[in-house]
Amino acid sequence: MGKKINVVVWNEGRHEKTSDEVRRAYPNGIHGAIAEGLGKQADMAMKTATLDDPEHGLTEAVLDNTDVLIWWGHMAHHEVRDEIVERVRDRILRGMGLIVLHSGHMSKIFLRMMGTSGRLKWREAGEKERLWNIEPGHPITEGIGEHFELPHTEMYGEPFGIPTPDKVIFISWFPGGEVFRSGCTWERDLGRIFYFRPGHETFPIYYDGNVLKVLTNAVRWAAPRLVVPSLDCPNVEPLEPLPARG
Amino acid sequence: MGKKINVVVWNEGRHEKTSDEVRRAYPNGIHGAIAEGLGKQADMAMKTATLDDPEHGLTEAVLDNTDVLIWWGHMAHHEVRDEIVERVRDRILRGMGLIVLHSGHMSKIFLRMMGTSGRLKWREAGEKERLWNIEPGHPITEGIGEHFELPHTEMYGEPFGIPTPDKVIFISWFPGGEVFRSGCTWERDLGRIFYFRPGHETFPIYYDGNVLKVLTNAVRWAAPRLVVPSLDCPNVEPLEPLPARG
Amino acid sequence: MGKKINVVVWNEGRHEKTSDEVRRAYPNGIHGAIAEGLGKQADMAMKTATLDDPEHGLTEAVLDNTDVLIWWGHMAHHEVRDEIVERVRDRILRGMGLIVLHSGHMSKIFLRMMGTSGRLKWREAGEKERLWNIEPGHPITEGIGEHFELPHTEMYGEPFGIPTPDKVIFISWFPGGEVFRSGCTWERDLGRIFYFRPGHETFPIYYDGNVLKVLTNAVRWAAPRLVVPSLDCPNVEPLEPLPARG
Amino acid sequence: MGKKINVVVWNEGRHEKTSDEVRRAYPNGIHGAIAEGLGKQADMAMKTATLDDPEHGLTEAVLDNTDVLIWWGHMAHHEVRDEIVERVRDRILRGMGLIVLHSGHMSKIFLRMMGTSGRLKWREAGEKERLWNIEPGHPITEGIGEHFELPHTEMYGEPFGIPTPDKVIFISWFPGGEVFRSGCTWERDLGRIFYFRPGHETFPIYYDGNVLKVLTNAVRWAAPRLVVPSLDCPNVEPLEPLPARG
Repeated sequence: MGKKINVVVWNEGRHEKTSDEVRRAYPNGIHGAIAEGLGKQADMAMKTATLDDPEHGLTEAVLDNTDVLIWWGHMAHHEVRDEIVERVRDRILRGMGLIVLHSGHMSKIFLRMMGTSGRLKWREAGEKERLWNIEPGHPITEGIGEHFELPHTEMYGEPFGIPTPDKVIFISWFPGGEVFRSGCTWERDLGRIFYFRPGHETFPIYYDGNVLKVLTNAVRWAAPRLVVPSLDCPNVEPLEPLPARG
Repeated sequence: MGKKINVVVWNEGRHEKTSDEVRRAYPNGIHGAIAEGLGKQADMAMKTATLDDPEHGLTEAVLDNTDVLIWWGHMAHHEVRDEIVERVRDRILRGMGLIVLHSGHMSKIFLRMMGTSGRLKWREAGEKERLWNIEPGHPITEGIGEHFELPHTEMYGEPFGIPTPDKVIFISWFPGGEVFRSGCTWERDLGRIFYFRPGHETFPIYYDGNVLKVLTNAVRWAAPRLVVPSLDCPNVEPLEPLPARG
Repeated sequence: MGKKINVVVWNEGRHEKTSDEVRRAYPNGIHGAIAEGLGKQADMAMKTATLDDPEHGLTEAVLDNTDVLIWWGHMAHHEVRDEIVERVRDRILRGMGLIVLHSGHMSKIFLRMMGTSGRLKWREAGEKERLWNIEPGHPITEGIGEHFELPHTEMYGEPFGIPTPDKVIFISWFPGGEVFRSGCTWERDLGRIFYFRPGHETFPIYYDGNVLKVLTNAVRWAAPRLVVPSLDCPNVEPLEPLPARG
Repeated sequence: MGKKINVVVWNEGRHEKTSDEVRRAYPNGIHGAIAEGLGKQADMAMKTATLDDPEHGLTEAVLDNTDVLIWWGHMAHHEVRDEIVERVRDRILRGMGLIVLHSGHMSKIFLRMMGTSGRLKWREAGEKERLWNIEPGHPITEGIGEHFELPHTEMYGEPFGIPTPDKVIFISWFPGGEVFRSGCTWERDLGRIFYFRPGHETFPIYYDGNVLKVLTNAVRWAAPRLVVPSLDCPNVEPLEPLPARG
């Protein structure tokens, strides 16, 4: 049997400490729910890390052994230390996959990789979301039908402040009248990045079968083909004889 | 006659202070040469700014009146203060154009907008560069033929650590055996970005007619269509009546 | 005052001949309504052509003097002669702009330029359409707000069988639960192509101010920067001395 | 052991019939050489087909059992029957992979999928080609170093008449002074397409280890994730209750 994909689910983990409602929705934390959901796959080795762990749980040793990092944050983006963001960024550029969830659109690491504002419209009205699968042949939509629904979600609406994605995988429809590019891919040097909109701290999104299927597919898609020890700017000798300078 | 495009040419300006050779090549500084070259166009109002100016010459007042910023830096990227980088980034996202030159591939502002490493290979052998125009219908190549040459340049070689460009405009050929994506475009929120490879502190690249033509075209292409005061994440009311929640 | 943009509005023109309802909506034909709407702009010189004209109104002489071709067809795509399609395609590749409207997603010329199926879902229920402007800084959305609405339209739904667009300009929301990439751009050699979803033979879409504004912007965006007489595969001499072969 | 990938190598096969030199280079035909080279992989089931076979060897039955089609043609593009081109296109859109080699840039099927001219510059001087790997983390470059060389090739030079690729994988350097986007990917509906420049009827390109490695990787990349029986435009019922029309 093949090598497992080492996945770290990172969660800010603050909502769980302050809200009974969140604890009821996610007794083991959002990270716990995702790790449990994906951990049922034979090819995934799951770990978790949170903001309040030493070095936010993202030590050099942890990252050196991480193939794909899943990121959930919301209320404490600004507490993530810049040096850890740079460490994660460095690791992505050298090959690690990154999956950013929901309110992670304003996380330091997502904005750092994108260069854009991450802006969007939002509304917490518990309305339905229908995600249209517009890339039915993409590895991330394997086993997903033409669309799937989540009964109660926070709405996110366009315009979404992201660079033109390599591929827009999902577009969401909301009954309040908005649309959103809910699944998007990019590459940054050797790292693959997937943003996936669904998620919330009280709606039980991360137990949903389709959501877990998309995340499972996305982890396999984002797993590195190549990891390099560094990305340098070498001074190189010519490969062909240069003409003598006049 | 129409409104002029307000262009600021930013130069690190350190080579000029330390090297007689650079001073001979660019008696008014690299920024001075570019400002002079572009300033011959009736639709351009040129200013310059350098690292050693107060706030690097990029005060709020200056940026509020800048349509396109041209960036040249090399030896002192790390001395550019992070708060100024964030100020420039904010202005780009809200509509200002950015043109990054040559060794600016490792500048804080370029890496901040791209999210990638900026890595490349390099060699200072004064070899020839031939730039192939692979987007002959693009506004940036107006008046440029199928290729043009620069007699003595520093070589940059692939792989170049950039996100997949919206458009690759030029690919360079070097006699030593390398190739390079020498002109590339991206967008970040409302800002348009062009990277242009040619340039060096001692080779007189910025007096070349084709180089100035490309920069002139690029300024016109990058000039904002729309500038907004801020990019927020508003909480919005539904546009359609929402069904009552069960 | 500058050179005008020569625009030809092509309409299949069959609905107008067979349906009183269509004649009431478009007494001068869909082509007439669009030509009249755009013709109010000082920089546009409008002509029209229809399927039943000799050579479908697209003679060599007409195309040689066309900067941008607007295409509307629906029930008689198959009657467009292949040789005329090839003539139009050749002209696009050499620089002419193409704007394809609504049911033109299944026209020979659109499928010929895209290479894809053009498939989509549809429903004629006269429902509302809300078009979200997701590229607010693009020339095609100049003067268009964050969204605009059309009170009664035919619905088109994803998945839409198109190549990944260079830019998705509009995403539509429909009350029946679908979404659609309603404004998309591509380039094919020197030609710029814009697909714009709104339109119908009985709903008076082409009198709408926002629709006409988008079409006006799109014509200016698609107008050629460069037109060449042919696109050949020349046998060329080396630009550098080749080493002698062993 | 998993399901094999069914690969058909299509070769025009005319050079082999008319030229001793070609027969010496490819005693079993270009198709034979490629089928032999790839057939050493345990996951590939190889077949071949040629222009002079009934229905060019591409019957419905053959295509129904093909995962990836490799295409080589040169002197007889115009003899490929349009109905077979449409059959191949239909199959690509429904999921089959397509790999187009070298002079296939002017084949009917490639131009049909791209919509562009396919134009390029060329020279038969037996010069060296160096292919730079600019997507080192892409599945198609697995096991390929930063660059590889072919000692004697026909030169192809930019500008290349193709749509902006999803990814440019290789850029070639030629000693005569040209560059070329030698490996490019696109998607068309459910089908993945890879163009790979190297190849010639007398230079023994398709025995080269790096070339075979790239083709092996490309077959695995292009193999379908999803194949559908048809791509229709269904008339659909609303998913949400529509408001009554006034």
